[in-house]
Amino acid sequence: MRILGIDPGIATIGFGVLDYENNNFSLVKCGVITTPPHISLSSRLDQIYNDLGDLIGAFKPDCVSVEELFFNTNITTGISVAHGRGVILLACYKANLTVYEYTPLQVKQSVAGYGRAEKKQVMEMVRRLCNLKTVPKPDDAADAVALAICHARSSTSLLQKGVSSECSTI
Amino acid sequence: MRILGIDPGIATIGFGVLDYENNNFSLVKCGVITTPPHISLSSRLDQIYNDLGDLIGAFKPDCVSVEELFFNTNITTGISVAHGRGVILLACYKANLTVYEYTPLQVKQSVAGYGRAEKKQVMEMVRRLCNLKTVPKPDDAADAVALAICHARSSTSLLQKGVSSECSTI
Repeated sequence: MRILGIDPGIATIGFGVLDYENNNFSLVKCGVITTPPHISLSSRLDQIYNDLGDLIGAFKPDCVSVEELFFNTNITTGISVAHGRGVILLACYKANLTVYEYTPLQVKQSVAGYGRAEKKQVMEMVRRLCNLKTVPKPDDAADAVALAICHARSSTSLLQKGVSSECSTI
Repeated sequence: MRILGIDPGIATIGFGVLDYENNNFSLVKCGVITTPPHISLSSRLDQIYNDLGDLIGAFKPDCVSVEELFFNTNITTGISVAHGRGVILLACYKANLTVYEYTPLQVKQSVAGYGRAEKKQVMEMVRRLCNLKTVPKPDDAADAVALAICHARSSTSLLQKGVSSECSTI
């Protein structure tokens, strides 16, 4: 199963393409899509949509794992990120990909085994699980890989339990 | 000048196509795009994107006037609306349309002459300015027409002042 993890945003969108077979992870590619702040919001959204479409076309994932949004602090940033997430979901839908969403707590729980794990611990577990020498950079790319790992583990655990789905699809 | 006013949303998106020449308004078409709540968010976004694309193709507006988002109360709803607004902006960008954004206060000020005007007063002014027998229904459609009127008046006033733009483009 090839999973595309996406850490949504408007300025920086993390992505991680992960192969998962027989309980083994193999990182195919990770990185970020970035958009410059001086262009219009519409133009940034167009860039995200196009770049993500290219990425999906190049790596042909089987499904997508994307972070659920929560905003308790900066609502203005949150609105921009939600605009970006809207076109991310659209790009995935147009490519016939099923999107699964996970909260940051679910990701920490799944990757580090503890919902209140520190970011550093999660990053280190990403490195170990993917057999990498160093943690993927920047953080948004590593976050996206963590989302892909989270979905791999959740879907396997669900298959073992004999249920079709427990996580949210959007 | 033909203006497409859009009241963004995820369940109901108001639209109003308005012709504005020599200080006269002529309402070409208004209504709502709706998406059912029982389908996935991705699928709703796809429907909004496609329907808006069809609308733009059919009525060929010169520009778009869309409401700016503010969320002080229900953040969860706000996040969904921002997802919808993201794909609305993308559809307009793909159609090479410039998008102008206005706050609810600017719309009230422009249409009813008073930033704290009641919704009912704004609706009645929309009816009068467009020479309609009744206020457009539902409210989201009338709100979208008000947004189009607001841009018509703002752009004219800017032309008279000899400046190119004062409102925000996104």
